[in-house]
Amino acid sequence: MDYDVVIVGGGPAGLTAGIYCVRRKLKAVVIERGALGGQMLHTSDIENWPGDRLVKGEELARRMAEHAKSLGVEFRYDEVAGFTTDRLEKTVILRKESITCKAVILATGGQHKKAKVKGEEEYAGRGVSYCAICDGPFFKVKKVAVVGGGNMAVEDTLYLSELAAKTYLIAKKLTAEEALVEKLKKSKVETIEDGIAEVHGEGTVKAIKLLSGKTLEVEGVFISEGHTPSTELAKQVGIKLDDRGFIDVNRSMETNIPGVYAAGDVTGGIPQITTAVGEGCTAAMKAYAYVKNA
Amino acid sequence: MDYDVVIVGGGPAGLTAGIYCVRRKLKAVVIERGALGGQMLHTSDIENWPGDRLVKGEELARRMAEHAKSLGVEFRYDEVAGFTTDRLEKTVILRKESITCKAVILATGGQHKKAKVKGEEEYAGRGVSYCAICDGPFFKVKKVAVVGGGNMAVEDTLYLSELAAKTYLIAKKLTAEEALVEKLKKSKVETIEDGIAEVHGEGTVKAIKLLSGKTLEVEGVFISEGHTPSTELAKQVGIKLDDRGFIDVNRSMETNIPGVYAAGDVTGGIPQITTAVGEGCTAAMKAYAYVKNA
Repeated sequence: MDYDVVIVGGGPAGLTAGIYCVRRKLKAVVIERGALGGQMLHTSDIENWPGDRLVKGEELARRMAEHAKSLGVEFRYDEVAGFTTDRLEKTVILRKESITCKAVILATGGQHKKAKVKGEEEYAGRGVSYCAICDGPFFKVKKVAVVGGGNMAVEDTLYLSELAAKTYLIAKKLTAEEALVEKLKKSKVETIEDGIAEVHGEGTVKAIKLLSGKTLEVEGVFISEGHTPSTELAKQVGIKLDDRGFIDVNRSMETNIPGVYAAGDVTGGIPQITTAVGEGCTAAMKAYAYVKNA
Repeated sequence: MDYDVVIVGGGPAGLTAGIYCVRRKLKAVVIERGALGGQMLHTSDIENWPGDRLVKGEELARRMAEHAKSLGVEFRYDEVAGFTTDRLEKTVILRKESITCKAVILATGGQHKKAKVKGEEEYAGRGVSYCAICDGPFFKVKKVAVVGGGNMAVEDTLYLSELAAKTYLIAKKLTAEEALVEKLKKSKVETIEDGIAEVHGEGTVKAIKLLSGKTLEVEGVFISEGHTPSTELAKQVGIKLDDRGFIDVNRSMETNIPGVYAAGDVTGGIPQITTAVGEGCTAAMKAYAYVKNA
């Protein structure tokens, strides 16, 4: 057996699961296809991580990853193609290799929702972006629009307004937390109650058309409409989803398959770092009991 | 209405609930009968708070409390005698006053388990202690015994062994996490596989008798057998407990009474800071929805 526990996903849920596994001397590996930190990497300022009044998402991601590494959590930067769900020994198939383990924790998070409008796909990476923190710096002193009304959209807008010459927020309805909405009102952002209809460009984005018919000249458009859970892997191995499409878990983070747990945004709880670390801890402790009794 | 949300208990669950409530511009107050920080105050070194490789319990408690205060969470240092559970307006009766609110979050945590042996009550505060961090400094260069085999007992023992002349750990079975047991083995602590039978003294503790009949001369004995949930208040207002005696909640931290939520150790999940903050966040967000629709 290569590992006691294989953790799929290196966001706060996966990193915390790793920390708790190795504290109990389980051999644990985190599989991450991108960079460690999950959605924290897409957040500029975090103000609700208890005990840190203000911390950069990138910094908290780095601190959690370093914490896990320092305790002996292993990491593999690869993609999981599938896994077998035998009770005693599960085989996790990566693109580069296959590894065996007793328990699997799915902390696969979510992926950015698309706006599903004309021109979006054509100009993706050429003005259309799904990550303000990643791509914002390319739009210094330019005009940009953010699409969405939730926390993520307002956070992205506030961040971009510090860089861009002009920032629009296009939202049918503002559902972000009140503290963020207040900040928005004090900022120089222009909020427009509308939806996006089309992306126009010539090689790169030049403008967006709104549902009302209005056209805004922008060079960047950030789609910040939240996430859909990344459940391809779960579906493939027969893990039950709930009616909203998230992995169905109980308070012990158990899925319908013995020895397979889920934690973080993929389970459809409140999508916050606090809940992710709580679920990662619980999943790890339940996996520990499973491994010791298996 | 005095408040939107009254939070009972100022440990990590209650403080996090406060942070999330005020970030959504709810008027929220935390009622704490002791000091802010809960069980964190009884922990010397915390090594599993993600992103902080090593943090003193007292420091993390202070950081979380300051975070909550800086955002506008109110605090009342008082005890809750009871509350009414009307759907629209609940009255929370404190010893000094009564306050009204729409939602209540119970984050009452637990209380130290007693060993239930002869002499324990008589010498409580005179050699018998339930908090190594609080009382340890009184036993510098003295002989002490810790009773218990879980994480808390081993953490207490390691902490005391730095101060005391001689430290015994009395455990029927070690159930602490492996990383702690390894540290214990490397320490100068003498671990005895036994249970406590009696506390002997003359004015203050002089010795303890073990179940095997053996007597150990010690001046301090720390009972570290974990916690029982503090559910007096819950029981009094008719909140349903589970078969282990914890407050029965679902994944949304709802109790059987509309507008009353519970979070943290009192709900019987994994008793960790990570799970407490996750549940505090969830309870706050569900209370927010309740308040806005009430």
